[in-house]
Amino acid sequence: MITSETNQQIKEIIKLQKQSKYRRKTLKFVTEGLKMLLEAAESGYLTKIYISDSVMEKVQDIPEVLLKKYSYEVVLDKVFQKISDTVTTQGILGIAKMPEYDIDSILSDNRHMWLLLDEVRDPGNLGTILRTAEGAGMSAVIMSKGTVDLFNPKTIRSTMGAIFRMPFIYVDDLTHIVKKIKNNGYNVYGTAMKGSVIYHKPDYTKGAGIVMGSEADGLSEGILEYISGAIRIPMEGGIESLNVAVAAAIVMYEAARQRYKR
Amino acid sequence: MITSETNQQIKEIIKLQKQSKYRRKTLKFVTEGLKMLLEAAESGYLTKIYISDSVMEKVQDIPEVLLKKYSYEVVLDKVFQKISDTVTTQGILGIAKMPEYDIDSILSDNRHMWLLLDEVRDPGNLGTILRTAEGAGMSAVIMSKGTVDLFNPKTIRSTMGAIFRMPFIYVDDLTHIVKKIKNNGYNVYGTAMKGSVIYHKPDYTKGAGIVMGSEADGLSEGILEYISGAIRIPMEGGIESLNVAVAAAIVMYEAARQRYKR
Repeated sequence: MITSETNQQIKEIIKLQKQSKYRRKTLKFVTEGLKMLLEAAESGYLTKIYISDSVMEKVQDIPEVLLKKYSYEVVLDKVFQKISDTVTTQGILGIAKMPEYDIDSILSDNRHMWLLLDEVRDPGNLGTILRTAEGAGMSAVIMSKGTVDLFNPKTIRSTMGAIFRMPFIYVDDLTHIVKKIKNNGYNVYGTAMKGSVIYHKPDYTKGAGIVMGSEADGLSEGILEYISGAIRIPMEGGIESLNVAVAAAIVMYEAARQRYKR
Repeated sequence: MITSETNQQIKEIIKLQKQSKYRRKTLKFVTEGLKMLLEAAESGYLTKIYISDSVMEKVQDIPEVLLKKYSYEVVLDKVFQKISDTVTTQGILGIAKMPEYDIDSILSDNRHMWLLLDEVRDPGNLGTILRTAEGAGMSAVIMSKGTVDLFNPKTIRSTMGAIFRMPFIYVDDLTHIVKKIKNNGYNVYGTAMKGSVIYHKPDYTKGAGIVMGSEADGLSEGILEYISGAIRIPMEGGIESLNVAVAAAIVMYEAARQRYKR
C-alpha cells in the first residue's frame, strides 16, 4: 500500500492531473471513477489502476475484469485525496494512454461529417461537445491548437467516456483543414451571429464540415474567409448567444435529423 | 468604504451567496459582473451595487446608468474577494430581487411552449437550459421542487442574463402541471431513452410541453404515466446519454425549426 505523498507514483499522478505539458510529453492522462475506468479498459487505453484503501475493503464491488487484467496499487485514503481531482472521490482512478489519430484517416472517414473547433476555451464545454459529437454520429472533432486541453480532468469527466471512442485531433492550422475538406468535395459551414443562412437550410446529407468559434469571439477572420457559408441559429428574447456546446449540438443533430429522414 | 468582513452588509451578501434558504426567505440574490448588472438594471430587478476599491479607481469604466440610478458601496479589495463567488472577480456585484411569475399567466402564454424540468441537479446545466429556452422562444421553464436552485451563483452566471427575462416557476407537483397542460389541449412529450418516437416526429407547431428528466435517472415514473408520448434522441457510438442541457436544446430547437419552416 502507498502511504506517502512523496511516493514517486503519487507525484507522477499529481503532475498528470495538473500539467497539460507533462501529459503531452508522456502521452498519458488520469481518468477517474469506475465507469470511466471500464470505458478505458474496453477501448484498450487503460494501463494501471489506483484504488483507495477504503474502496479496496469493498473489493467485491470492483468489476473483476479490472483487477485481473491490470496491475493496481492500493493507496491510503488520505493520500488518494491528493491524487483525485474531484471533491467527493470515487476512490478509484487509472492511468490511460492518450488515443491518437492521424488527420488522413480522419478526413477519409466514410461518414464525412467533421466538427471543427476554433479556440473553444471552456473545459466542460469541450467535453460535452465530444460526447454530443459521438452521439450525433460525427466522423471526428478537429481542434485548433488554441482549443482547451481535451485531457484536462474536467474535460475528461464531461466526455462521459467519449474520449476513448470519438476520433479527435489538434491541428496547427485549422484554415488549412477547412481548405482540405472543401478540396475533397464537401461544404464547410461556420456558425456566426450574422450568418446569412439559417442552420437548417443547408443539405448536410452528403457530408460537411461544421466550424464552431470560441465562446467569446466566435469564428476567427481567417476561417470566415474560407468557409462555404456562414450559418446562424435564430435566437428569440434578449440573449446574445448560445452556449457553444448547445450551439454545436443543435447543428450536429440537425445534420443527423436530415440523415435519419432520408 | 466598507473595510471589514464583519460589516453587516458583507455578512448578508455572503449569506445570500451561500444559503439558498436565505435567498428564498428574503427573495433576493447576488449577481456578479458588469454585464449581469446591466441586465438586472434593465429588467428592473437590481436594488443595490457593491464595487471593489480598485474598480472604483477606474470609475469611468462603469456605465453611468448604474451609478446614477442605484445606491452603491465601495468595498476594500480584500473584503470584496470574500463576497465574490468567482475566482477572478470583476470587482462589481449587485443585489437583485427575485423575479416572480404565477403559474396561470405562465400556462396562458400565447407561445404555448413549456419546458418542464423533473429534478435536474446540475447548476450549470440549469442555467444553460434557461438561456437556451429563451433563445428557442419557449413560454417558460417549469421546475419540480427537487430541481437545483436557479439562484445558485453558478446557475445565475450560466444563464448569461436570461434569469432576468425568461419566465420560470418551481412547482410542488410537476405531474399536476403535465395534466393541466394536456387539459388545455396541448401534447406533453417526455424525453426517455426508450422513447417510442424520434424527437422530430411530433408536430410542435400548435404548442406543446416538453419534459426533461434528471441527469442520472431520467423521467420519474409518475410523469411517464401522464405524458402524451415518450420521445427519444437517437444516439450513435457508445454513449449512454446526452448532457441534459444538450438534450433540452435539441428538442426545443426542433420545435423552433418547425415554427420557422411554416
